[in-house]
Amino acid sequence: MARMSALQAFRFGMNIAVYATSSSTEPVEQMTPHVVRGGLDDEIKLIEFARMCDVITLENEFVDGNLLTRVREASGTPIYPLPSSFVQIGDKLTEKDTFKNAGIPVTPYAHINGTSDLERFGDQYGWPYVLKSAKGGYDGYGNATVKDVNEAIVAFDKLGGNRAQVIIAEAFVPYTMELAVMVARNATGYAVYPCVESIQQNHICKEVIAPARIAPELQVQAQQLAIAAVEAIDGIGIFGFEFFLTPDNQILLNESAPRPHNSGHYTIEGCVTSQFENHIRAVSGLPLGSTQMVAPAAVMINLLGAYNEGAHVRNPESVLSDMQSHLHIYGKSHSKIGRKMGHLTCLGHDIEETLSRARHLSKLVSI
Amino acid sequence: MARMSALQAFRFGMNIAVYATSSSTEPVEQMTPHVVRGGLDDEIKLIEFARMCDVITLENEFVDGNLLTRVREASGTPIYPLPSSFVQIGDKLTEKDTFKNAGIPVTPYAHINGTSDLERFGDQYGWPYVLKSAKGGYDGYGNATVKDVNEAIVAFDKLGGNRAQVIIAEAFVPYTMELAVMVARNATGYAVYPCVESIQQNHICKEVIAPARIAPELQVQAQQLAIAAVEAIDGIGIFGFEFFLTPDNQILLNESAPRPHNSGHYTIEGCVTSQFENHIRAVSGLPLGSTQMVAPAAVMINLLGAYNEGAHVRNPESVLSDMQSHLHIYGKSHSKIGRKMGHLTCLGHDIEETLSRARHLSKLVSI
Repeated sequence: MARMSALQAFRFGMNIAVYATSSSTEPVEQMTPHVVRGGLDDEIKLIEFARMCDVITLENEFVDGNLLTRVREASGTPIYPLPSSFVQIGDKLTEKDTFKNAGIPVTPYAHINGTSDLERFGDQYGWPYVLKSAKGGYDGYGNATVKDVNEAIVAFDKLGGNRAQVIIAEAFVPYTMELAVMVARNATGYAVYPCVESIQQNHICKEVIAPARIAPELQVQAQQLAIAAVEAIDGIGIFGFEFFLTPDNQILLNESAPRPHNSGHYTIEGCVTSQFENHIRAVSGLPLGSTQMVAPAAVMINLLGAYNEGAHVRNPESVLSDMQSHLHIYGKSHSKIGRKMGHLTCLGHDIEETLSRARHLSKLVSI
Repeated sequence: MARMSALQAFRFGMNIAVYATSSSTEPVEQMTPHVVRGGLDDEIKLIEFARMCDVITLENEFVDGNLLTRVREASGTPIYPLPSSFVQIGDKLTEKDTFKNAGIPVTPYAHINGTSDLERFGDQYGWPYVLKSAKGGYDGYGNATVKDVNEAIVAFDKLGGNRAQVIIAEAFVPYTMELAVMVARNATGYAVYPCVESIQQNHICKEVIAPARIAPELQVQAQQLAIAAVEAIDGIGIFGFEFFLTPDNQILLNESAPRPHNSGHYTIEGCVTSQFENHIRAVSGLPLGSTQMVAPAAVMINLLGAYNEGAHVRNPESVLSDMQSHLHIYGKSHSKIGRKMGHLTCLGHDIEETLSRARHLSKLVSI
């Protein structure tokens, strides 16, 4: 459980325990006396940990769903999202298949087994396209954009295609905007958040604008796809869905995240109930809270590391002195150039004014 | 540092350490791996603890200010509020003297040394009056209302007056309303919160209504007295001041608290910057945030223990389902009848509507 969800659990009077790998120094480990160390594949340790807890939640989609099923059964402790949801989105190929089979438009993709598949995909969907390791990372790691068959062969190998890694190809969809929608869901229903606009830089989310600057009917369409997606995997907890909006106003599902998501950080101050609060509510059997925005506009900007050194916030005063702005620092001990170190959220009455204020403030503070 | 302030420290990326007595099981101990146990008078242990920290804050006014001064000097670690502030309000008699000498109207009081003083005070200010142990507790513990000299003699003894406890008498001031004002202050200035109305039951704060239902000029007057009071003790951090409003619209300072205060809990959702956030900002050298309310009305109701048993929240759904209401549970392991176990805050456009909604909801949930 990560830091911002832990804050919400505390608010409801719960205590938290953290399962951490032996090498990790996650900030959330500083928020509890109960830290258990073990491998993410150490079934015995995981079961022991599960028995300490009343309920378990994960903010990591890289844990094996079948292992979670066994931990659930052996410990008797509920795990949310359900292990079966993790099985359904266990890797990028399975995930695409799951959502496509549920009738949700996804970007064209194919499982790549070798050179001939690489060539065929490019011929069918055009160059460039994107190669992804099915099990691979996030924020652009484990991805490669390839513009011809030679680049594709190199990238396929680099991503591990020749070393038994499952590799998928995805068509490079021209889009006019990236959208994202968070949905919380529990046993009795769902609560869907506004459709937001997500601005990426170097494959990393840089800015989120809520609501997205598109027609209301397109916003609703994205929300409906997000609801369909969460229902397709019987999702319990909070889920984030990222979409491409194409020039002809098609909305294609790009990625899913079975956890609080960067595109939902604006909800902390921007909505009646934050994504973290609804996450905790959903996994602990409490009713979901309102997802309504508390201001007409909210803009979130990630504070990416500007230095390679011990984390130290420079000039937080600039953000802290603005009464419509909110600063979050994640407590990571070291800054690295480009690493997500914190974020700021600005609220306002007008999107363009709020965006330019947020951009201005984000340039004044650095970590 | 208590639980709700710890949440704000985490938000700014700070880690926390807790100094706890050997017998304590404070919920905040569940929020960090760094708990040091020792007596509140164990100078060596306190210095050791101080050396672990970048800054220390207390949410307890019963620690000796002179001891804190020595800990500050030996460790080099800043302590806020300043040890000198704790000296100035070290007990109820010193506190009254401090504020009276600063020109702040306080309820009539006197140091009581024995039977003749008990009689003299009653003759001068009328019966009944209130006897208080100068070092004594909070929420009505350590107080006694006495209506004649015989009751006064019994209470004086019961409060420890014959066993070297300093006892003060306070005139029973007729009042039409109890008011409270929070003030945050750092090296560069202060931020004053709205003047609120506090409704007590059995000497325990039951409800807080923000803003108080009195004329704006009286609200401002209470705010000015609170600012004068915090300046009188060179207060750094967050401070709460409770006042009596008399039938002829005099405002008399009743009590002070050098810490986040129950009468400021409404600020979590009711103001741009909560009392806890401004507390952390003030003691860590960050600029203070806006104290402006985010809705025209806020009502906070304490959830007092309704059972003597392990803490278990009944029917939290009632509050959690109301989108203008917010539930806080403090994580205490045991419920005791009358013990503060959590609170709820309702926001609204109209004070009377918000108050009746909050009262209705507070009857549906129990701990």
